[in-house]
Amino acid sequence: MAAIVLRDGQTVFDPEYVARPRHSGEVPVRVTTAGICETDLQLIRGYMGFEGVLGHEFVGIAESGRHAGQRVVGEINCSCGECEACHGGRGNHCPHRTVLGILDHDGAFADVVYVPEGNLHAVPKQISDDAAVFVEPLAAAFQIPAQVDLSWLRRATVLGDGRLGNLCAQVLRLQGCDVEVIGKHAEKLALIDELGIRSRLLSEITLGPTADLVVDCTGSESGLQTAMQLVRPRGTIVLKTTTAAPSGPNLAPLVIDEVTLVGSRCGPFPAAIEALAAGQIQVAPLISGRYPLAEGVEALDRASRRTHLKVLLDVN
Amino acid sequence: MAAIVLRDGQTVFDPEYVARPRHSGEVPVRVTTAGICETDLQLIRGYMGFEGVLGHEFVGIAESGRHAGQRVVGEINCSCGECEACHGGRGNHCPHRTVLGILDHDGAFADVVYVPEGNLHAVPKQISDDAAVFVEPLAAAFQIPAQVDLSWLRRATVLGDGRLGNLCAQVLRLQGCDVEVIGKHAEKLALIDELGIRSRLLSEITLGPTADLVVDCTGSESGLQTAMQLVRPRGTIVLKTTTAAPSGPNLAPLVIDEVTLVGSRCGPFPAAIEALAAGQIQVAPLISGRYPLAEGVEALDRASRRTHLKVLLDVN
Repeated sequence: MAAIVLRDGQTVFDPEYVARPRHSGEVPVRVTTAGICETDLQLIRGYMGFEGVLGHEFVGIAESGRHAGQRVVGEINCSCGECEACHGGRGNHCPHRTVLGILDHDGAFADVVYVPEGNLHAVPKQISDDAAVFVEPLAAAFQIPAQVDLSWLRRATVLGDGRLGNLCAQVLRLQGCDVEVIGKHAEKLALIDELGIRSRLLSEITLGPTADLVVDCTGSESGLQTAMQLVRPRGTIVLKTTTAAPSGPNLAPLVIDEVTLVGSRCGPFPAAIEALAAGQIQVAPLISGRYPLAEGVEALDRASRRTHLKVLLDVN
Repeated sequence: MAAIVLRDGQTVFDPEYVARPRHSGEVPVRVTTAGICETDLQLIRGYMGFEGVLGHEFVGIAESGRHAGQRVVGEINCSCGECEACHGGRGNHCPHRTVLGILDHDGAFADVVYVPEGNLHAVPKQISDDAAVFVEPLAAAFQIPAQVDLSWLRRATVLGDGRLGNLCAQVLRLQGCDVEVIGKHAEKLALIDELGIRSRLLSEITLGPTADLVVDCTGSESGLQTAMQLVRPRGTIVLKTTTAAPSGPNLAPLVIDEVTLVGSRCGPFPAAIEALAAGQIQVAPLISGRYPLAEGVEALDRASRRTHLKVLLDVN
């Protein structure tokens, strides 16, 4: 048993760590491969005050329950199932929830992660282990069409050329939007171009309010301000970025221009699994490094560099 | 000819002011009664850098055109009619627009205001002059159901007990919402109570995330922060408040809770006229003072005091 553990502000590889279920009814999943997310890096910087095993993007083999012996991915929000939010179909917002590797629940940078059985989804054989690691972030991208009626928001701009920006751009194109990605990194924008999606360097454009939809995937304090300069009156901004900044921009322009701002987080796993199985989303080009679990601390350090996209951990 | 004019940061009564049309095709309207809005007070403090005749809430008699001799109210956004926004049905957001008494267009605190003919609406005889002055702010309240599907947002909280908060609460009740108003002024909340709408003093409540819909009509920098504490996950905040503050709150909670924030401004005049004609909205209790136009500067000063709701100017 081993894990990458965040404790007292330090991230360590603990070769003796013993994962235990958080609640009854959780299934042990032997992790095959896990992915490092921007959120992991923020947790290390103190976000959410989390302590425990990091990691919430993973694929593994369920060791018991309905999916025993099968490859599975797992939704990260572990809800109580009994409160008003859960009964109202908003389990991801259960006030009593734990979240794998983020809130009061050990995560997937470990030999074994315990997951509520209802959170597990079988992985079809068309999807490789590497691709399956992207189900969780890809589901977050599919949350955009789940929240927003795109039928009248065709001109879409994705702000941010990182992992999530790339996936959001692909999902929006799949939904029929005319997509453009604006980013700061020529080498990441080149990957966007290779997908056949238009891209531009932020430093080389003049901002104007022409986009029907702007998705802020920058992870940056300035992202929303830029989005407000790009969206047309009565357009929509989807906000994926959270920061620890003490304040945000003055929102008077949103009122004057009657812009809608949609906070967006986790999304539907089935849509992501279906799109990956159908080969509709390309994720292999996003993998920019891989490390064994024992080198997970180094992997996290590497992932924090701007040149990296998705760093994987080979666990079992 | 006379008008209340904002010029060089000073508001003056000019008994010799001669209003002229801004564009061809504008109809002179002899103003009967006008209302002082919070925006007028902000303009005096420098908002928008406006100079000219103040006033955008009014009723009067059209002196020419299709409505000649009839009582009319007028929409305030004067659009070009030729650009993409106008062709797309978003004339209120025309980038070339002028706005009565707010942007590059003389307003209604004057004997005569010139208004594009297409902006005018006849006032049915069931609506008094005093009530007709409320068509413009009431239309702004009706913009909420025009923008937001209220069928699944039944528990509504209106933040702010002023003129707009009162009107928004009445409109939301008319739409079938279970409405509560939270404010800071016992005497204004008493008017809400008299309408049969629940109200509470902000200082006496514990904020919790239970409302499906929160409408920020506070006009205060702290309004949005309070709204974020009141709205449930996946709920909606309608933002009516604009401030000149250099920044707003950090919006990470909106992302985590997947809240939708809708900027909302001017609304549909026909809905407001219909509701007033049907006696569905009570506006008389909101009138807290009236002055002749010649005393308009004093009226503006009075309107800026927190105890006042709607101050009217009797013009002709």
